[in-house]
Amino acid sequence: MDDIHRFRDDSVGYCIEDLSVGMSAVYARTVTETDIVLFSGVSGDSNPVHMNELYARGTIFKTRIVHGMLTASFLSTVIGSKLPGPGSIYLSQNLRFRAPVRAGDTVEARITVTEIIPEKNRVALKTVCRVGDKVVIEGDALVMVPGR
Amino acid sequence: MDDIHRFRDDSVGYCIEDLSVGMSAVYARTVTETDIVLFSGVSGDSNPVHMNELYARGTIFKTRIVHGMLTASFLSTVIGSKLPGPGSIYLSQNLRFRAPVRAGDTVEARITVTEIIPEKNRVALKTVCRVGDKVVIEGDALVMVPGR
Amino acid sequence: MDDIHRFRDDSVGYCIEDLSVGMSAVYARTVTETDIVLFSGVSGDSNPVHMNELYARGTIFKTRIVHGMLTASFLSTVIGSKLPGPGSIYLSQNLRFRAPVRAGDTVEARITVTEIIPEKNRVALKTVCRVGDKVVIEGDALVMVPGR
Amino acid sequence: MDDIHRFRDDSVGYCIEDLSVGMSAVYARTVTETDIVLFSGVSGDSNPVHMNELYARGTIFKTRIVHGMLTASFLSTVIGSKLPGPGSIYLSQNLRFRAPVRAGDTVEARITVTEIIPEKNRVALKTVCRVGDKVVIEGDALVMVPGR
Repeated sequence: MDDIHRFRDDSVGYCIEDLSVGMSAVYARTVTETDIVLFSGVSGDSNPVHMNELYARGTIFKTRIVHGMLTASFLSTVIGSKLPGPGSIYLSQNLRFRAPVRAGDTVEARITVTEIIPEKNRVALKTVCRVGDKVVIEGDALVMVPGR
Repeated sequence: MDDIHRFRDDSVGYCIEDLSVGMSAVYARTVTETDIVLFSGVSGDSNPVHMNELYARGTIFKTRIVHGMLTASFLSTVIGSKLPGPGSIYLSQNLRFRAPVRAGDTVEARITVTEIIPEKNRVALKTVCRVGDKVVIEGDALVMVPGR
Repeated sequence: MDDIHRFRDDSVGYCIEDLSVGMSAVYARTVTETDIVLFSGVSGDSNPVHMNELYARGTIFKTRIVHGMLTASFLSTVIGSKLPGPGSIYLSQNLRFRAPVRAGDTVEARITVTEIIPEKNRVALKTVCRVGDKVVIEGDALVMVPGR
Repeated sequence: MDDIHRFRDDSVGYCIEDLSVGMSAVYARTVTETDIVLFSGVSGDSNPVHMNELYARGTIFKTRIVHGMLTASFLSTVIGSKLPGPGSIYLSQNLRFRAPVRAGDTVEARITVTEIIPEKNRVALKTVCRVGDKVVIEGDALVMVPGR
């Protein structure tokens, strides 16, 4: 079973029958200045708190901060790539932004299964991003997962 | 009001006293294949539904789709850049993903003020992304806005 | 065992004791024009066969082709991320370029374990990239893998 | 010979008759954090040794390292752009990874002609990447070159 699992095609995610409450998966990444610039380019968000160091020094953040939606995207990465993974359909995501992230911070995005609704092929997920011990984003997601 | 808006310093957002229910702002953008590739790079999400055309053809989407969080980031762009704009602090965002977006689609992200809570310096926003008439993402956001 | 495996931290690759001849892993991706442009930027290779459509039309390839080293990098992606994965050290890679890849092609990069040399903590791998049934790159790699 | 080389049309490479053993060409480049992020995007390799500083600190490398195939791509840049240059066809490349490269390092990729096989229109090349005096990659390549 273990070997079969090892060769599980990573373009195939979990089926609803494979999921159980408490399952968890993580994506961790150091966010660089490059990521801020590229995200600004694709999102169009060139708000000075992200792009203008002189402006950002005058804010409560004291330096440029990472776009909240870039940090939030790491949650989507775990959901789409790992848990439940490819084949699942993202229905909703709630995000509460708790603390800023700065270039150089390493963000850990963690997804945990909190509820399975088999009659609707849905799974509820707790979604948390941390830098060290500090929660920077928390929220919940709802995903549709195929049955076998 | 419109003219004042047009010529405001775009590094200074609205104060709570300047906002009223029904005010609205938009960011619209054609999402390209390049945006998908770059967003995959910064988010780490190389889920085959975004990156592998042969895989995507076998899904209900029939072709590669845009990352939902990339589309959602356009909402954040309006909030951080236009309404309420720089100086506001993003507290929360709820997203409901209603329909897929594909390379070549032009997304309109619209923010509308729905409630002002002056004693807490907060404003509630309706947040909607459309492709043509079709709603692709809808939700709500809560933002803290400085007073004068 | 299966559940433990499912939550195997994907920042931890296989140990030499976990590997056996015939194990295999894949990364598949549609190569876009964007990938060609970005790879040209990071590699410095702006050879006209990749970047100049008018020039490329006059070559045996008839259109711009993907940089061979970009296609080859997908092999490295499988080795570094999946098999043997993080913690392994890439010692060598031989590449034979068999056929061109063009923008829009979906490349499948497959790694297969061909030999295990436990006394040296090394594993030999067959490394093949295909577009459909056609082999575009083939070769071998040697990787050092930690013991338990 | 040097002057001729300097003013050659850079979309026209050497013909087999123009090459002689010992000819050499170089591409040198400082590899930045941006290059690592962009290469991760186009290759799909977001292995934590490249992308997660906290993880990388716990490895023998002590910090994030550059993808080996990004460094190797500089060899391809010399071959495709300078020696033999445009019009040549890359047949094979052997790579031995000798030492890590880190963001901020300046890599010199050097190609030297080691053998000419005129009856097959092929040329053998020694391919070496250095950071300062340290060899980081070495290997050999075989290239097909047009005749006059």
